[in-house]
Amino acid sequence: MTLQQIFNNIDKISSEITDIRRHLHMHPELSHQEVETPEFIANYLEGLNIPVRRGVGGRGVVGRIEGGKPGRTIAFRADFDALPIQDAKDVPYKSTVPGVMHACGHDGHTAALLGFAKAMNEVKDELPGNIVLIHQFGEELSPGGATAMIEDGCLEGVAEIYGAHLQSQMEVGHVYGRDGYLQAAEDTVKITVNGSGTHGAEPHTGTDPILAASHIMVALQSIVSRNADPLKELVVSIGKFHAGDADNVIPEKAIMEGTIRVFDENLRSLAGQRIRDLAAGVGQGLGCTVDVEIGKGYDSLWNHPEQMDLIRRAVDSSFGDGVYKDIDPVMPVEDFSYYLQKVAGAFFFVGAKPLDVENPFPHHHEKFDFHEPAMAMTAKVFAAAYFEAQK
Amino acid sequence: MTLQQIFNNIDKISSEITDIRRHLHMHPELSHQEVETPEFIANYLEGLNIPVRRGVGGRGVVGRIEGGKPGRTIAFRADFDALPIQDAKDVPYKSTVPGVMHACGHDGHTAALLGFAKAMNEVKDELPGNIVLIHQFGEELSPGGATAMIEDGCLEGVAEIYGAHLQSQMEVGHVYGRDGYLQAAEDTVKITVNGSGTHGAEPHTGTDPILAASHIMVALQSIVSRNADPLKELVVSIGKFHAGDADNVIPEKAIMEGTIRVFDENLRSLAGQRIRDLAAGVGQGLGCTVDVEIGKGYDSLWNHPEQMDLIRRAVDSSFGDGVYKDIDPVMPVEDFSYYLQKVAGAFFFVGAKPLDVENPFPHHHEKFDFHEPAMAMTAKVFAAAYFEAQK
Amino acid sequence: MTLQQIFNNIDKISSEITDIRRHLHMHPELSHQEVETPEFIANYLEGLNIPVRRGVGGRGVVGRIEGGKPGRTIAFRADFDALPIQDAKDVPYKSTVPGVMHACGHDGHTAALLGFAKAMNEVKDELPGNIVLIHQFGEELSPGGATAMIEDGCLEGVAEIYGAHLQSQMEVGHVYGRDGYLQAAEDTVKITVNGSGTHGAEPHTGTDPILAASHIMVALQSIVSRNADPLKELVVSIGKFHAGDADNVIPEKAIMEGTIRVFDENLRSLAGQRIRDLAAGVGQGLGCTVDVEIGKGYDSLWNHPEQMDLIRRAVDSSFGDGVYKDIDPVMPVEDFSYYLQKVAGAFFFVGAKPLDVENPFPHHHEKFDFHEPAMAMTAKVFAAAYFEAQK
Amino acid sequence: MTLQQIFNNIDKISSEITDIRRHLHMHPELSHQEVETPEFIANYLEGLNIPVRRGVGGRGVVGRIEGGKPGRTIAFRADFDALPIQDAKDVPYKSTVPGVMHACGHDGHTAALLGFAKAMNEVKDELPGNIVLIHQFGEELSPGGATAMIEDGCLEGVAEIYGAHLQSQMEVGHVYGRDGYLQAAEDTVKITVNGSGTHGAEPHTGTDPILAASHIMVALQSIVSRNADPLKELVVSIGKFHAGDADNVIPEKAIMEGTIRVFDENLRSLAGQRIRDLAAGVGQGLGCTVDVEIGKGYDSLWNHPEQMDLIRRAVDSSFGDGVYKDIDPVMPVEDFSYYLQKVAGAFFFVGAKPLDVENPFPHHHEKFDFHEPAMAMTAKVFAAAYFEAQK
Repeated sequence: MTLQQIFNNIDKISSEITDIRRHLHMHPELSHQEVETPEFIANYLEGLNIPVRRGVGGRGVVGRIEGGKPGRTIAFRADFDALPIQDAKDVPYKSTVPGVMHACGHDGHTAALLGFAKAMNEVKDELPGNIVLIHQFGEELSPGGATAMIEDGCLEGVAEIYGAHLQSQMEVGHVYGRDGYLQAAEDTVKITVNGSGTHGAEPHTGTDPILAASHIMVALQSIVSRNADPLKELVVSIGKFHAGDADNVIPEKAIMEGTIRVFDENLRSLAGQRIRDLAAGVGQGLGCTVDVEIGKGYDSLWNHPEQMDLIRRAVDSSFGDGVYKDIDPVMPVEDFSYYLQKVAGAFFFVGAKPLDVENPFPHHHEKFDFHEPAMAMTAKVFAAAYFEAQK
Repeated sequence: MTLQQIFNNIDKISSEITDIRRHLHMHPELSHQEVETPEFIANYLEGLNIPVRRGVGGRGVVGRIEGGKPGRTIAFRADFDALPIQDAKDVPYKSTVPGVMHACGHDGHTAALLGFAKAMNEVKDELPGNIVLIHQFGEELSPGGATAMIEDGCLEGVAEIYGAHLQSQMEVGHVYGRDGYLQAAEDTVKITVNGSGTHGAEPHTGTDPILAASHIMVALQSIVSRNADPLKELVVSIGKFHAGDADNVIPEKAIMEGTIRVFDENLRSLAGQRIRDLAAGVGQGLGCTVDVEIGKGYDSLWNHPEQMDLIRRAVDSSFGDGVYKDIDPVMPVEDFSYYLQKVAGAFFFVGAKPLDVENPFPHHHEKFDFHEPAMAMTAKVFAAAYFEAQK
Repeated sequence: MTLQQIFNNIDKISSEITDIRRHLHMHPELSHQEVETPEFIANYLEGLNIPVRRGVGGRGVVGRIEGGKPGRTIAFRADFDALPIQDAKDVPYKSTVPGVMHACGHDGHTAALLGFAKAMNEVKDELPGNIVLIHQFGEELSPGGATAMIEDGCLEGVAEIYGAHLQSQMEVGHVYGRDGYLQAAEDTVKITVNGSGTHGAEPHTGTDPILAASHIMVALQSIVSRNADPLKELVVSIGKFHAGDADNVIPEKAIMEGTIRVFDENLRSLAGQRIRDLAAGVGQGLGCTVDVEIGKGYDSLWNHPEQMDLIRRAVDSSFGDGVYKDIDPVMPVEDFSYYLQKVAGAFFFVGAKPLDVENPFPHHHEKFDFHEPAMAMTAKVFAAAYFEAQK
Repeated sequence: MTLQQIFNNIDKISSEITDIRRHLHMHPELSHQEVETPEFIANYLEGLNIPVRRGVGGRGVVGRIEGGKPGRTIAFRADFDALPIQDAKDVPYKSTVPGVMHACGHDGHTAALLGFAKAMNEVKDELPGNIVLIHQFGEELSPGGATAMIEDGCLEGVAEIYGAHLQSQMEVGHVYGRDGYLQAAEDTVKITVNGSGTHGAEPHTGTDPILAASHIMVALQSIVSRNADPLKELVVSIGKFHAGDADNVIPEKAIMEGTIRVFDENLRSLAGQRIRDLAAGVGQGLGCTVDVEIGKGYDSLWNHPEQMDLIRRAVDSSFGDGVYKDIDPVMPVEDFSYYLQKVAGAFFFVGAKPLDVENPFPHHHEKFDFHEPAMAMTAKVFAAAYFEAQK
């Protein structure tokens, strides 16, 4: 049995993978509300005689393929939740659930992992090692399913883990990754500036929270420009600033809400602490009290260099030099980061730009779609990685 | 005929004045929507055989009492519109119109002027000069009724004009005024900062209007602190700052709305121009375009010193030394200012604080009320001023 | 004896007043270093048989003229110190002391008071009451001579006090004043922002005091624009901002120095406290500690309305209606303010604009001069005020 | 002939290398004022029968070793200028020139390159290819010697170029580098804010440049926080802010001076343009005109990946795995960058931390020194790189 045989098997079930994806696409379920999707997955795997554990960490499904030969246990993960977006595509497999849509490709991840499972399972007697299939719920909504499934033991005995994300804006036929930080950590920020309302014609009888909040907004820029190591990436953005109901009344409070994006954990802590200290100090200087809430989002995703290199080798040896490409890190978040905090592994992107489209719709767009053969490509990279990891 | 006789006449009709006021209080009409109120006033005056002109400037009523002796023509003005406030008092004369209320005392102004008219009319044959009774609509809503009535000729032949405002938070038994500026001018400000929206994680791909607006908000303080003569009064307050719908999205625009209060017209112009220039420059420096709208409100009210002095003398000689009090200017606006731009005159406050109340409700409050005998006091001051003006 | 006779006497010694002034002008002495000037004054008064006390409060001279008739004791004050300015005028009476000059007219004040003393002393037997002549040292340099002379008893037995300042930019022939605040109080401000120096290429390894100081500078504007009653005058200006020696090194500290000008004592306290709180809070928000030093300067000068009115009456009855003019308060400081905290009195300006000059040099200018006959005018106003005060 | 033989030759002349370094250390010459140093170098090379060209680009020296076998022409560069620093070390080879010191290790670079030249020259008949020895003047003072020497043809016929910098704070025995950007570009910034001076008590009669400059200082932070791609490095620091001479006078102008550090050329242009636009706009918004001067400093140093990889291989194969280490880019500048814009090549650091020293003095410190055997190490890396480049 060679990797090429596995690839052939995957090619053979390519249309089945597409069917699975389209079925899931038509029946999306919101994060942490998934019922039919995990049942569908579990049933599919059981139909292949792959033993599964249901309800892992709540709604997750974990399958296990035991190879006929000794070897290492390698996990692969796909997420299966959808988004609260009304599907606006005009395709036969359009979502049938009003206001819910697979607008991020998780249906494709699931289909690719099930296809990979089927292809590998067919040759399991000849396989060295074992495959753990992690079908994760709730990736889109922090706290996500990864931490719950890890706590529930999905990584027990696992030596390495790999995961992939289809990317509608990256070129088909390529695999993308990088050593170390690939995706950012995110925290949310809410700053409430409490002044003392009064008539706009008599500002001295109150304390102006709009002015204090504006000073804080301006001063927040210094966290990136002065407090962060210029060699480390940090973004602090305020997206909402709301205060007041009448042009001639100084309001009681002003509220700002924003987001922090960062890779380095120390810088993440520093940024949060600086926001607290800066807002408190500047607010106080302007006579206001300030409440700062920092909501912890996903950690940054850090690819283990050895495992990332394994993907590089697996891809280039299987598909040709230049198929794998190193990229800069990206700012969106991904709770695959938590698996990588427990075991070695890597996460990578699979190009899935729809053909004949100049400017494909981005992820989370109501018309999002992807090039479906990229699912088979994903399954093949998993297979290649698996064999590389057994070397 | 002496002033004391007039005062006695006014005392005799004191309860009628109260009745008129309560009738109006129960049937308030919004600014520029007054129909029954001017008709009531006109009918009342005609019932006294005082000739009236209806529909002056739209909804105003002007009456004229011709004295039997030669003399000067002196005008007195009362406004008669109500406010969009739900009356929350528990009194027999509570407003019968849902959501509309005489919460500023204009009912009292009207009743006082009608009482003055009746008392003076009784002795008109002995009166030197003529009295013009200006019952004005729409004072609460700029552009107010004053300018329309002036354009429609209400000041023709008038030598001087006087007006009064009952004040629920000033002491009963006193009359208050000052030479020169008594009430502020007001303009409204709307600043729209146009950036370029983008994802909060990628600020460099857009232009942040919240940051630019915050810089403008902060810089606006310099207009009062640096550009205004420290000896002249100016307030620039922003009461509303609204931008953005999502914490992780840089919005397209930020909007601030505020108020300018000022007495001196040159400083008023300067403030408006500085807001335009400052917002444009700072916005441009931060990469945004800025639209500034300055809505012209009422001009400041400037009491002619000679006429203000006439009120001083009239009050102190009639009611005793110390009844008249000089006060600092106040920030609320009043379109009586426009009459004073055309003819000499003065505007003053009559103390009308409800008895046995520590902290009376302010004007425009849903429980606002005033001490009703202050209406007769107002009528008497008008009478005293009239005789003083004929000297 | 009439006031007119006194006026005639003053006219007769007019050239002597000029001679005295020119002598003093040629021999100016710096504040708190006066030696010859007080000796000259004391000798002159003693030459008139007016008893004097030397060394009052250090360097002051107090003379006393006892009238022959009973009456009130009224004080008049003139200051006699000069400034550290090189005289640049081309006149025969130019300063003979390098770098020292009577550039504020104190020589004229002294000459006027000596002339007044001579004229009054000639008729002392007929005078009701007593005259106290306060020749004050060190007005230009806080803490000034006034407080020291008061502590040393110069106001003992004094019922009222009057003082005047010649004004090179006000019209000759007029006297100017106002009830209440005429001249501002002044405090000095020094704000030291302590950061942590580092290489400019590595800002995150230090704390930037220039940025923190800039934030404080910007936020200081809010004290005038938001914390001060818009009806009360306040100025907070920073005149110096110094930090750093190299363009690529973040310095250890930034230092700002400025001035506060204000009339109302409560607002003065508030401004000082706000500067302390604002600088501490904003500095802390930006990671810096801040030291604020507020140096107390002269208090504001508050004219007692009754005594100011006495000056009004004295001037207009002696020189004609319209000679006295009410003016707005002015921002320069004057330690005559301290006398007015102890006894009733008033301070006023005497127009002394040089003739045939469009734009006279301002006070403290190296070419400053004034119209010398204004000294006799000052002496006459003192005389008129004296008689008015004895009524 | 093997590389090991070359290494042995270098070891043999190790003490000569030290002697050369110490001679240069005792006779330092300032940038663009070098006379004896280039003469010393030229003489040394000519003493080895290596032909040299003097005065290249002004003060540079270029030697050329022609190998006996065909091959590629590879250049190596060492800089030889010193700094205006008073040597404060207590060593026998302390600088003999008051106020001038080799405080950056250029003496060591020169000695290492001369040692390399001697060792290679001994075996030149067996060498494939040719060696170009670039001894550069004026590296510390922009515009540096590199551009002048390049213009004067020092790179003619050169296929690749390599250079090294001894690092007193990096571990002895290691070589450090990175693909792409290794050292930053630097520009200087001077911002002059022109207001209109006036008395501090009358701010409205002038325009406050300190306030405008403070606003600009604060707003400058947004260039890094908002305008720069978070994945790209940028520093904008202001090290000097000077304005005003008196606490109570608003000055005419405020001047800020600072530095820009950046790797990416597009971002460098963007930063400069943003500083111009931001300062102009914000200054104008506060009523001031602003002059911005951006002084172009050295470009960023970009290592060609293939040549950097050559150094990696050369080092690890000669000295053992782990001797070469990848590092993050650093912010100091280096005009070796200009050679790399013309031909392929790489620049790397050689660890030279003094032994038995916990915290070695940094470069440009008055007590700076380095571990002298690191010079031989540098010569050996050059040799290894030369042979690698001939493969």
